[in-house]
Amino acid sequence: MDNTSLTTGGFTLPGEAGYETLTLELAKKWGADVIRDSDGTQLSSEITESDYDIYSTLCLVRADNEWAKANPTKLQQCCVMSEPVTADGETVTVDLLKGYFKEQLVINSDDDPKEWWQVFDRTSGEEVSTDCWSFDKEKGSVTIESAIKWHRYTVNFFCYRIWEEISMYNHVTNDWGDKEHLMPIDPIHPEARDQIREYLAKWLADHPNTKVVRLTSMFYNFWWFWGDPAKQRFIVNDWGSYEFSVSTEAIRQFEKQFGYRPKSEDFINAGLYNNSYKVPSKLYRDWMDFINQLVVSFGKECVDRIHEAGKLAFVFYNDHWIGIEPYNERFKDFGFDGIIDGIFNGFETRKVAECPAVNVRELRMHPYLFPTGVNGEPSFLPGGKPTEECKRYWTDIRRALLRKGCDRIGFGGYLHLVENHPDFVDYIEELGNEFRQLRGLHQAGAPEELPLKVAILSAWGNTRAWACCGHFNHGNYYNEAMESVSGLAAETVFISFDDILEKGIDPSIDVIINAGIVDDSWSGGEYWKNPSIVEALSAFIGEGGGFIGIGEPSSQRHGSQYFQLAHIMGVDREIGLTSAFNRPGFEVVSDHFITADTDASLDLGKTVDSIYLTDTSAKVLAAKGNSPTIAVNEFAKGRCVYLAGHTYEAKNLRVLLRALFWAAGKESLVEKGFSSNLYCECAYYPKSGKLVVINNSSEPQTTSISTASGAIEISLEPNASKIIDQPSPV
Amino acid sequence: MDNTSLTTGGFTLPGEAGYETLTLELAKKWGADVIRDSDGTQLSSEITESDYDIYSTLCLVRADNEWAKANPTKLQQCCVMSEPVTADGETVTVDLLKGYFKEQLVINSDDDPKEWWQVFDRTSGEEVSTDCWSFDKEKGSVTIESAIKWHRYTVNFFCYRIWEEISMYNHVTNDWGDKEHLMPIDPIHPEARDQIREYLAKWLADHPNTKVVRLTSMFYNFWWFWGDPAKQRFIVNDWGSYEFSVSTEAIRQFEKQFGYRPKSEDFINAGLYNNSYKVPSKLYRDWMDFINQLVVSFGKECVDRIHEAGKLAFVFYNDHWIGIEPYNERFKDFGFDGIIDGIFNGFETRKVAECPAVNVRELRMHPYLFPTGVNGEPSFLPGGKPTEECKRYWTDIRRALLRKGCDRIGFGGYLHLVENHPDFVDYIEELGNEFRQLRGLHQAGAPEELPLKVAILSAWGNTRAWACCGHFNHGNYYNEAMESVSGLAAETVFISFDDILEKGIDPSIDVIINAGIVDDSWSGGEYWKNPSIVEALSAFIGEGGGFIGIGEPSSQRHGSQYFQLAHIMGVDREIGLTSAFNRPGFEVVSDHFITADTDASLDLGKTVDSIYLTDTSAKVLAAKGNSPTIAVNEFAKGRCVYLAGHTYEAKNLRVLLRALFWAAGKESLVEKGFSSNLYCECAYYPKSGKLVVINNSSEPQTTSISTASGAIEISLEPNASKIIDQPSPV
Repeated sequence: MDNTSLTTGGFTLPGEAGYETLTLELAKKWGADVIRDSDGTQLSSEITESDYDIYSTLCLVRADNEWAKANPTKLQQCCVMSEPVTADGETVTVDLLKGYFKEQLVINSDDDPKEWWQVFDRTSGEEVSTDCWSFDKEKGSVTIESAIKWHRYTVNFFCYRIWEEISMYNHVTNDWGDKEHLMPIDPIHPEARDQIREYLAKWLADHPNTKVVRLTSMFYNFWWFWGDPAKQRFIVNDWGSYEFSVSTEAIRQFEKQFGYRPKSEDFINAGLYNNSYKVPSKLYRDWMDFINQLVVSFGKECVDRIHEAGKLAFVFYNDHWIGIEPYNERFKDFGFDGIIDGIFNGFETRKVAECPAVNVRELRMHPYLFPTGVNGEPSFLPGGKPTEECKRYWTDIRRALLRKGCDRIGFGGYLHLVENHPDFVDYIEELGNEFRQLRGLHQAGAPEELPLKVAILSAWGNTRAWACCGHFNHGNYYNEAMESVSGLAAETVFISFDDILEKGIDPSIDVIINAGIVDDSWSGGEYWKNPSIVEALSAFIGEGGGFIGIGEPSSQRHGSQYFQLAHIMGVDREIGLTSAFNRPGFEVVSDHFITADTDASLDLGKTVDSIYLTDTSAKVLAAKGNSPTIAVNEFAKGRCVYLAGHTYEAKNLRVLLRALFWAAGKESLVEKGFSSNLYCECAYYPKSGKLVVINNSSEPQTTSISTASGAIEISLEPNASKIIDQPSPV
Repeated sequence: MDNTSLTTGGFTLPGEAGYETLTLELAKKWGADVIRDSDGTQLSSEITESDYDIYSTLCLVRADNEWAKANPTKLQQCCVMSEPVTADGETVTVDLLKGYFKEQLVINSDDDPKEWWQVFDRTSGEEVSTDCWSFDKEKGSVTIESAIKWHRYTVNFFCYRIWEEISMYNHVTNDWGDKEHLMPIDPIHPEARDQIREYLAKWLADHPNTKVVRLTSMFYNFWWFWGDPAKQRFIVNDWGSYEFSVSTEAIRQFEKQFGYRPKSEDFINAGLYNNSYKVPSKLYRDWMDFINQLVVSFGKECVDRIHEAGKLAFVFYNDHWIGIEPYNERFKDFGFDGIIDGIFNGFETRKVAECPAVNVRELRMHPYLFPTGVNGEPSFLPGGKPTEECKRYWTDIRRALLRKGCDRIGFGGYLHLVENHPDFVDYIEELGNEFRQLRGLHQAGAPEELPLKVAILSAWGNTRAWACCGHFNHGNYYNEAMESVSGLAAETVFISFDDILEKGIDPSIDVIINAGIVDDSWSGGEYWKNPSIVEALSAFIGEGGGFIGIGEPSSQRHGSQYFQLAHIMGVDREIGLTSAFNRPGFEVVSDHFITADTDASLDLGKTVDSIYLTDTSAKVLAAKGNSPTIAVNEFAKGRCVYLAGHTYEAKNLRVLLRALFWAAGKESLVEKGFSSNLYCECAYYPKSGKLVVINNSSEPQTTSISTASGAIEISLEPNASKIIDQPSPV
């Protein structure tokens, strides 16, 4: 692959049989070096035998539906909580699948319900004895005897999943009609692994022109319950949750390895399941480890077969990505050659860009070439504005790409949908060239980083580096802050509370960010009850570290304060139990380093209310009524910034950047490659002697960039970038 | 006392020596029948020997400062938590009174600190062994050895209170300079009781012209910590809390009676103390009972002495009212002749009006004749608008007075302050006459009540009937709703969760209101974890009862939902742990009985966000973005209304009234004495054949009132009322 050209290469085009001319025309115009197929499209021999490299998608767990149909007990499973039913008498009957999509789930009655299932009285919180309930296989219901009137009952039960979810989504979204439903088989079973081995061998033989096997992905999809279509299409969707790796057989094998047996309630957690917002329990971490082992060991075997066939193995960082965990230790064992993810934002860009142990990192851009976009936008439907959409995403992605490079971009879906959008066709040509320019700069040498090391602290730590719960979760303080940080020239690491408990806080860290709300995995939840955590943070800050708390940092209903670092941040939150207390008044300090570039129009977006000063030491830089929204405090040798909210947006971004400088005690960094205009940012590539300046807004902007050799004035068209010769450092 | 005149009587005037002419002139103009003294004023013989009845204020616990000075160990006490100190090494020293007002508190070192005090590591939550700390009496500090660096430490210690708080407030507010500080003595000591007996006997002999002894009040003031004046004047102020009845001697006597000994931490509760927002613990209820016994038994003795002297005993429902508890069983034992409270609002009016076991109920109006009002308004200072203020309060009071009558009104303070406010002098004459008219109607016979029984459910129940934590706590859902209900023609009762556990729910109740936020005493906090509570409410609603939940009704982090009645209300709140779940969409229903009188301008004020529909059964009547603010649901035979907030204001009031009708299944009540204009209300007095219509707004209003004989059109001046002959019922 040519990776020095500025007009060709590093671009993956989705080809489409029946549109061979279009495929080859666009491949040329967009500078593609690779053509791929997608779910729902094939490549004809006219394409596969062209001069382009061929990526072929392959999803091993849904690849052979005949085998799946013949082996229904080897399908993937999951554990489900029925909708609660309120008892109106001593007997209550629960229709297990009520509210769920019956084309996705069927009840597993092969494994003895009395052994595997649990029935709960959710009003009392107590389990109902197995003697007191019975399962009616015919009706798909459980009947509870000696129920207590008015109590709510739920049943935890196991299901087979009979429609592989990504295929189901593509099928339903694109109206594939009576096309057969594909079913996912479970490699926890040796028979399923044998079948996959056999299928893969045949597939490799059948695809001589394929250069890259694009695995989408390995074996287990992220968690995605669908609802009764008449009432609610989607019930829950969590990119990070392992609920679809749960099965009776996996539990049996887990027990053999870990010496204890999870119960259904360990996966259900009273309806919370093990979702990404929940602080992971010890059991759930063990479960993730168990699944990770299986996925890596069998995954490596598959990758080895692909390599033996002379092909490369790229993995899609999505769909069936559960158990792959690129940021964990074992990932390198797979031997993947490349990783690809479908992304919209800066943080997702960094997630791909910093993925270890692969040679190729590829961004699959949006809009996906489907009539309706993955985020619900009417991209290629009447009224859709694919160019505008793509430009919006690219502007966010580019910020991050300035800091860490990727090797390739690409699209997916039905290529023919672009036919009616000549502006889109032209824009993608332009975008491809802009991407290649940035790639070239990174290839020559990394951009300058500020001497500022930022650690984002959550219960997940590096396991969910540059990730939250899927695509951008707007309004989530953690995700908003991470998106903002993704485009800053600061070294960024992700640390967990367990990291702190095990090895303390790395003294090279300048500032720790903790963002989230009470009890969630992002703020850290119950970890804040652990005195060792408070000690470690206190020592870090007290000895000169910086701390930025966003939303409800360090919050927990524990002890004599709600923010466990209230005494350090100088602010706490009134949660309604101490309303009789008077709190110190304050005046908003209008002149401060952190807010120097903003004015009263600064809007932090959604903010946490009822914040008060614990004493008179903190300074308030902004407030909504009586509730501070930005407050700064000094604690021993360290500095804290409290933000009642944060939204990824230019003014907030600037406040966060300055807060990082201030908290680190490195205010002078404002003189280093700083854009006077907050809608613009820049990066300096010393090896190339180039300064890249970007306009993040859809208006023209002029900015002055401070460099070692003086300020430079630059004007930029809407959303544009400029590359400027700059031999001396910024 | 003449209580039929419409121009004279039922009015208590604060007299002032040195202003005899003014006193007697205003007594005549305002139709006073009683002249009183106030804290800071005396009555001269010219006044006391006039034809007016004389009320004399008497506060027995601060009456004899010589005795107090001579008996410092008999002063009242309290338990205090020091400001937390963060350890910066192995030794940490806590300055006990740091941040507190040293003219209010002195450390009690007479009772052995090692026996009585407790030191806590608030980071770990653990108590520090008494071996590890020492008290330095000289410095007023505690030093902790073997502290853990970065942990926060507090000391629970006992103090004497050396400045009686009400007197302190009056002293400071009115700049009394070097006037001696009065100290409160504690009748827990037999010696103090003897002294009070002796003092009272002498006082009674010395006040031959006094007709009514106005006790302000009995022995223990509500909880009111003052702060270091340089930093924060008030630390905490809670009208309902018993913290100022706590002393070492009271604990000793409590132990003898109840068989267990409270620790300091039982009163401190990690800094929450036992404030009114906290769900009362069993120990705290026992403590209240213990203090109530003491106050009633010794209080009765004092009242008996007053009666024996041929005088009446009225009690002030404020200041040292702790332990009096008018709504509790023992109150009748006092033998009080009257009760008086200083009030601003409707709910406080009802609190006085419905007080049992007294003959006279008097409202002390505001503004108090002090330069600065009790609520901080500059009433009689330059810029003050006492007439406007008074009219505002009266408009709120009058709504409640329409439903339940009181016998008297009055003022307090320095009479001469009104001299420069002739408009105020005229307005009070008018107000007095309006009051007497309403009193006359009530005397002839009660107004019609709607056949609608409302129960307000909280952890406090009837013990805090028509009360919250002091004057109007704006923004508190419970207080806002109570204020709205105080002017409705519905029978209103207050029930507690313990009432429900002990005797179930009275089936004569039509609608239960639960308003508050998670964990607070108003919503009920941990009571909602008790399945018996959920059962009782479910049965009540399921069998046809109505339920109105405001804010976070039935909330608790327990089981599979946050609102424990979510399945009944049809809504729950997302608290950030299930953000991955999709929730049913909704359309706002614009045409509903509850919102029939309002439009998009309806503003519920502060509301709880992130509300979602649990399924598709509830109807949404209003929403802020994706979060419903008004939702209705049917559950079996009952009906529920969820309000995400409520503000005492005309449109909200109307929504609440209609919600009550709807929840009760009594929509036809809208035809009974209903004002078409939501700024007006009315009451019908069948015995007098009079309809009173009031204008609650400061604009002129016209309304149509529906009556049995057809609609009546009425026009009203701003804030005015009209009395209309209406022989047939409404």
